[in-house]
Amino acid sequence: MTKQLTVAVVGATGAVGSKMMEQLIKRKFPIGHIKFLASARSAGKSIEFNGETYTIEEATPEAFEGVNVALFSAGGSVSAVLAPEAAKRGAVVIDNTSHFRMDPEVPLVVPEVNRGDLAKHKGIIANPNCSTIQMVAALEPIRHAFGLTKVIVSTYQAVSGAGISAIQELKAQSENWDAGKDVEANILPSGSDKRHYPIARNVIPQIDKFTDNGFTYEEMKMINETKKIMHAPELKVAATCVRVPVVSGHSESVYIEVEKDASIQEIFEVLRNAPGVVLQDDIATQTYPMPIYAEGEDATFVGRIRQDLDNSKGFHLWIVSDNLLKGAALNSIQIAEAMLEDNLL
Amino acid sequence: MTKQLTVAVVGATGAVGSKMMEQLIKRKFPIGHIKFLASARSAGKSIEFNGETYTIEEATPEAFEGVNVALFSAGGSVSAVLAPEAAKRGAVVIDNTSHFRMDPEVPLVVPEVNRGDLAKHKGIIANPNCSTIQMVAALEPIRHAFGLTKVIVSTYQAVSGAGISAIQELKAQSENWDAGKDVEANILPSGSDKRHYPIARNVIPQIDKFTDNGFTYEEMKMINETKKIMHAPELKVAATCVRVPVVSGHSESVYIEVEKDASIQEIFEVLRNAPGVVLQDDIATQTYPMPIYAEGEDATFVGRIRQDLDNSKGFHLWIVSDNLLKGAALNSIQIAEAMLEDNLL
Repeated sequence: MTKQLTVAVVGATGAVGSKMMEQLIKRKFPIGHIKFLASARSAGKSIEFNGETYTIEEATPEAFEGVNVALFSAGGSVSAVLAPEAAKRGAVVIDNTSHFRMDPEVPLVVPEVNRGDLAKHKGIIANPNCSTIQMVAALEPIRHAFGLTKVIVSTYQAVSGAGISAIQELKAQSENWDAGKDVEANILPSGSDKRHYPIARNVIPQIDKFTDNGFTYEEMKMINETKKIMHAPELKVAATCVRVPVVSGHSESVYIEVEKDASIQEIFEVLRNAPGVVLQDDIATQTYPMPIYAEGEDATFVGRIRQDLDNSKGFHLWIVSDNLLKGAALNSIQIAEAMLEDNLL
Repeated sequence: MTKQLTVAVVGATGAVGSKMMEQLIKRKFPIGHIKFLASARSAGKSIEFNGETYTIEEATPEAFEGVNVALFSAGGSVSAVLAPEAAKRGAVVIDNTSHFRMDPEVPLVVPEVNRGDLAKHKGIIANPNCSTIQMVAALEPIRHAFGLTKVIVSTYQAVSGAGISAIQELKAQSENWDAGKDVEANILPSGSDKRHYPIARNVIPQIDKFTDNGFTYEEMKMINETKKIMHAPELKVAATCVRVPVVSGHSESVYIEVEKDASIQEIFEVLRNAPGVVLQDDIATQTYPMPIYAEGEDATFVGRIRQDLDNSKGFHLWIVSDNLLKGAALNSIQIAEAMLEDNLL
């Protein structure tokens, strides 16, 4: 008999939050009781979940009393304040923001890759960055089989990663563009940055703000989180993160170098047996992953696998996944499921 | 006093052909006489050029008699048959198709990079692939200053590279998408390939058909043409070519390794002084190249320049240019201008 858990959802109305609710239902997560928490401004509003109506409560520290699992996706500043309060009250926090990800005390987990790290938790587990999750899900089986020394990734990221307002902005810009009207930009590349650019009919080589070294925070997340999740501080990782006019589904052009000799057939075989990975690679039938077909799917799709023409230990891959599912909501729920199975909840 | 030339345009009504006509006028190419050639099917139709109306003539071998410069952009099979006929009659052919590019007897030229190769022509000059031109224009000054050993590029290519019908298809799909209707795909990724996929709200990791080694022809063009233009057969080049829902302007995420020590400031300095290149790189003001701002511009724009965090001789760049201008029509006319200046016409 499965334990029935008390679950709190913080940030349920956001792009990721609403997908987390869907995943809880779809995956039949054993919910005994569920509560929805938000800022004082939203408290009192009602929210639908699994055919029932709930009243949103204010997310105070006390609201986490008796909660077993708290799913946070309401922004880094909310998590910074409330996640420790929830943990202090015995909840296990699964945090979708970047706030705790590089904290050495906080496991950063993709269950297929480093499930063992969950046992070391001190009340908070961090869910990695969307573009990082799908990349490590595809690369870990290769690393396990052949070793991995180098990763160079260029991303093609969907607007839903920037929230519901970015999806609406792409739609509005696209309609105006088609109608020959002026296009207004207020959200992308980063709501909190100074300048905004249209994404319809454009690509923007900036996601999140810039750090001092010229890389963006998104790029540094991919670099640092990959090393942490894979327990590979010596792994060479470089990233260029680019927003494209796609609604959902991040794509990645990835170059890797492995340690041991590997053939394309061996890489295929490893990925065919990799948990959470679907190989879509057949040039005869033009089969390869694309974001419009990955939307709504759980898997990380991999294709366009080629051995480098100059370096037999170099390989090129094309990795696509739904950034709101495996990249966020699904991975969060999978973390909770793994903890339940491992008697950590 | 400038010589007045007789110019023939083959394929004037295509996406590149119409831009070539614009460039001839805009750049005041010294035209004494101009003629427009097409298949028998289009012969007899009229075409506007610089305020006058011309009748399209059938592109027979004899039509090239007396022509000084023949600009071809009517597909590889047309060039294969007619370019040698034009050359035999004394015309210099500047061919926009891929047909002659890797022919060792045919110079493949980006004037800023390998203008000297023009002198070796035997009647036919090949204009390189669009994504190759902008990349070598940006990389050659760096190679000249610091040497270059390795290039790994992932592209974000506009639909106009696949012709006017692909532009129309993106527009129709986008309108249907916005209206919630079904989206039809008939052109991309490659009109002559078996399966077609929507490009609106999608990215397609296939441009042109596949070759036997798993790379596409577009990718192999970037690899082989880059080495030929740079006279660098030993240069390591790898490419992943991806179509994005942008009308015009190809973007490229490029990783390079140089031979000699170089600083970011030195790379900046080299690119600031590079012909045809505009440096757009200031993270404080979120300044970097983007396709919607490159459309209609002559330059190759470079930004997001970063030293690799693991390899001091590794650099990341973001290169954008209008694929129909520097990537095709403009480069063709610049070839003709360079030949005129060098007394090769």
